[in-house]
Amino acid sequence: MSATDTPSSYTPPRKMPARTAGSGGQFTPIRAEITVADCVIEGQLPSDLSGGFYATGPDPQYPLRPGNIPFDAEGHARLFRIHNGRVDYRTRFIRSLRYLAQDRAGRSLFPMYRNPSLDDPSVQGLNRTTANTHVLNHKGLILALKEDSPPVAMDLNTLETVDPIYTFDGQLPETQPFTAHPKICSRTGNIIAFGYEAEGFGSDVVSVFELEKDTGKKIWEARIKVPYVGLLHDFGVTENHIVLYVVPLAIDLEQMRRGGVHWSWDATRKTYFGFFRRHGDGKDLRWIEGPAMSGTHTMGVFEDKGRIYLDTEMTPGNPFPFMPNKDGSPPDLPGSYSTLHRISANLNGPNKGYDVEMLFPLNMPLPKQDDRYNTAPYRWGYGACPAPEGQPPGSCYAAMDVQTKTYKLWNAGPHISLAEPVFAPKHAGSREGEGYLLGVAYNLNEANRSDLVILDAERVDEGPLCKVRLPVPASPQVHGWWVREDQYPT
Amino acid sequence: MSATDTPSSYTPPRKMPARTAGSGGQFTPIRAEITVADCVIEGQLPSDLSGGFYATGPDPQYPLRPGNIPFDAEGHARLFRIHNGRVDYRTRFIRSLRYLAQDRAGRSLFPMYRNPSLDDPSVQGLNRTTANTHVLNHKGLILALKEDSPPVAMDLNTLETVDPIYTFDGQLPETQPFTAHPKICSRTGNIIAFGYEAEGFGSDVVSVFELEKDTGKKIWEARIKVPYVGLLHDFGVTENHIVLYVVPLAIDLEQMRRGGVHWSWDATRKTYFGFFRRHGDGKDLRWIEGPAMSGTHTMGVFEDKGRIYLDTEMTPGNPFPFMPNKDGSPPDLPGSYSTLHRISANLNGPNKGYDVEMLFPLNMPLPKQDDRYNTAPYRWGYGACPAPEGQPPGSCYAAMDVQTKTYKLWNAGPHISLAEPVFAPKHAGSREGEGYLLGVAYNLNEANRSDLVILDAERVDEGPLCKVRLPVPASPQVHGWWVREDQYPT
Repeated sequence: MSATDTPSSYTPPRKMPARTAGSGGQFTPIRAEITVADCVIEGQLPSDLSGGFYATGPDPQYPLRPGNIPFDAEGHARLFRIHNGRVDYRTRFIRSLRYLAQDRAGRSLFPMYRNPSLDDPSVQGLNRTTANTHVLNHKGLILALKEDSPPVAMDLNTLETVDPIYTFDGQLPETQPFTAHPKICSRTGNIIAFGYEAEGFGSDVVSVFELEKDTGKKIWEARIKVPYVGLLHDFGVTENHIVLYVVPLAIDLEQMRRGGVHWSWDATRKTYFGFFRRHGDGKDLRWIEGPAMSGTHTMGVFEDKGRIYLDTEMTPGNPFPFMPNKDGSPPDLPGSYSTLHRISANLNGPNKGYDVEMLFPLNMPLPKQDDRYNTAPYRWGYGACPAPEGQPPGSCYAAMDVQTKTYKLWNAGPHISLAEPVFAPKHAGSREGEGYLLGVAYNLNEANRSDLVILDAERVDEGPLCKVRLPVPASPQVHGWWVREDQYPT
Repeated sequence: MSATDTPSSYTPPRKMPARTAGSGGQFTPIRAEITVADCVIEGQLPSDLSGGFYATGPDPQYPLRPGNIPFDAEGHARLFRIHNGRVDYRTRFIRSLRYLAQDRAGRSLFPMYRNPSLDDPSVQGLNRTTANTHVLNHKGLILALKEDSPPVAMDLNTLETVDPIYTFDGQLPETQPFTAHPKICSRTGNIIAFGYEAEGFGSDVVSVFELEKDTGKKIWEARIKVPYVGLLHDFGVTENHIVLYVVPLAIDLEQMRRGGVHWSWDATRKTYFGFFRRHGDGKDLRWIEGPAMSGTHTMGVFEDKGRIYLDTEMTPGNPFPFMPNKDGSPPDLPGSYSTLHRISANLNGPNKGYDVEMLFPLNMPLPKQDDRYNTAPYRWGYGACPAPEGQPPGSCYAAMDVQTKTYKLWNAGPHISLAEPVFAPKHAGSREGEGYLLGVAYNLNEANRSDLVILDAERVDEGPLCKVRLPVPASPQVHGWWVREDQYPT
């Protein structure tokens, strides 16, 4: 870290939210690939909504071995295609090399999350991606992402897998890790991505790179080192800088030797907030140390008057109760409670630690923004959260104004589980936040049968404009992505 | 009818069975096309079971117009493919011309069951098949059947539609009606089928024909006339004869002019049991008159010592409570109660009516047999029925010995709906009844989530050997068909 900066001391609050009632929800396995033509719609589908809502999530192709974690299930991709006043629904398992090998074998061959030492001898060295975390459109394809591997490319319309290791025309090595949270440059449309453990298993090198919007050509790469090898699940990109946040879900080689997963929560380690110039060589990287806590998902990032700001959900401890704690302590549920925070620091120092303020006391592990603002100053954030204190229990969608620090909520009620929503602008040139919020509601009292709910993003508190009624449960979802009609090949 | 025969007087008993409890069941719409690779199996899949269990059923592509009947929904095909100890599940809507036109229009264009006068002008004259009644394998295809049209042909493995009007290489006119219950000759493997209203809408001509097993070449056809135009849903074929049973669900032109469905139950009409020589010219046709009652589905048929026997389920009245009664009377539920009967007559007369005896007092509208015995004397019948009187309530599968008039039951319990089962011989040369009974169990307390249950057909009372667990409800089913492993193209 930089000698000019002193450590931070803030930690987020430890408090568990009320949870929804019922069983099921957005991570419930289904294993069924489903197509529904011309879905039943209750209410009025907005006439100016056109495009595709894509998502992926983990869905166990075969049962998980005891001790493995829900993250280690095969990616199941999903599309709500909205066009000409009609909604078509489609899900497909992603035909990763791992999926195909297991399908042939009729059993699991990769028994432990990111621990290749236990892999079946028949698949030693095979790419292990599950492609179960996020999706992104590029060059008329949908790329399914898992941070330990290159993307898997799918057909934009059918979700059929067209390339199980998408290397951007050979520019990336087949072993290149690729974040599940690339950013789209708000000015150029380029993809900015990174990969940690970039020089091999356990490597402390992070490769950050930029790919041209239309061609996918790599136009910049910098390699930097992290203070330790921890989960670098997301990051931030502004017009001029790259922001990283290193949290103490650290690689645990001893645990892996015992047959365990890649990470454990190491409360003896510190966090590190870091930034360096985009398009530079990375040598200006500056790290600022803080207490053991976590920040997993970026909502937005911006620079203003020599300071850099990262809006992220933060937890006081291990954000994933199913990830082991290095000291052997039991799962720390209050420690996994996410709330929305803003981390900031002077770009040119000196800093008395990094500054942290709470933005919203909402429990929101998966915050989103209008993705046209990934690298620009922004105003609006969105996400699913349990109803905050003082409100009737229920699952809510929130639209948050980070400038006024106010929010609007729609409370779907206590027997609904809401997945991460996506923002769909009315058209490419709409002002920020002018559009729709789309999200999947899993009905816990209907054996998880699901609806796509569509809200006016500027009037979230008025509730859904319409529900697209599925006859079955939706596939599991982690993250989703909106593809505008103008982004489809003609 | 023949002057040598006098009318029959028997009518089946009027008695309603106990019904299963819960909501859903085998006719619940789903609209979702589903694929599940390598299904979860509870119990032991028999190692000598290999082949495909195909079915179809009506699943509304768009909501049915009030006054229309559940039969008038689009065919949704289904396959459980059992091979190498693994079960793959797949369903696909059948891409009939009607389905495709409606998919393009985004709405129903054929609003009333077999009443073309209400069809949308854009589809006047288009083939109206829903292909929702039965399926049959032929020449490496699956043919989906609806009695008013030629089959729709699907790929045997994928269920993708390959020919929306399958005319057996142009041998049948595109308007040829084709029964949903063709028989497979037990000796030659040929297909024997018929079409009623064979010379145009409302025609009293029935065309009966035989198609060669391997080539599909038509090697015989006879045209006969029925006493009146009624629902001729099934028939019987022996080595030497064709058997028909005309029931008073009669064409109702007045009702159709008022915008109603094709049929109404006309209790003023009689039944007619008829037979004539197979491979003859039909001139020997003999009809024997009986009271107004119904027999819709054949279990088996045979000849013995100059008599011909038809084993069929029979109802004292209109078998379909949702079909109108011509006299305007309300639905007659006890009149729709099916029980298993044997109808017989002397082939060469004279007959004092046709003889009727009850075979089994089981409520079984969809009886089946080992389909290798379609045209041969047989011993074993199978089917789903509510538990008979004196037993705990529940949905049962029965294996019935028509020689000893005894049966064995497995009672699945009160919260299960069981669809028509299919018999799968262990291999092509197994003795009659040596094999498995496969059927779909809809779990009414699990939002219709379904299992394929597999029983030893000779030990049905011992319950399932295994359950193939679907994560979702199975598609609706009317009739199903088993394709043996040796019948798949190599």
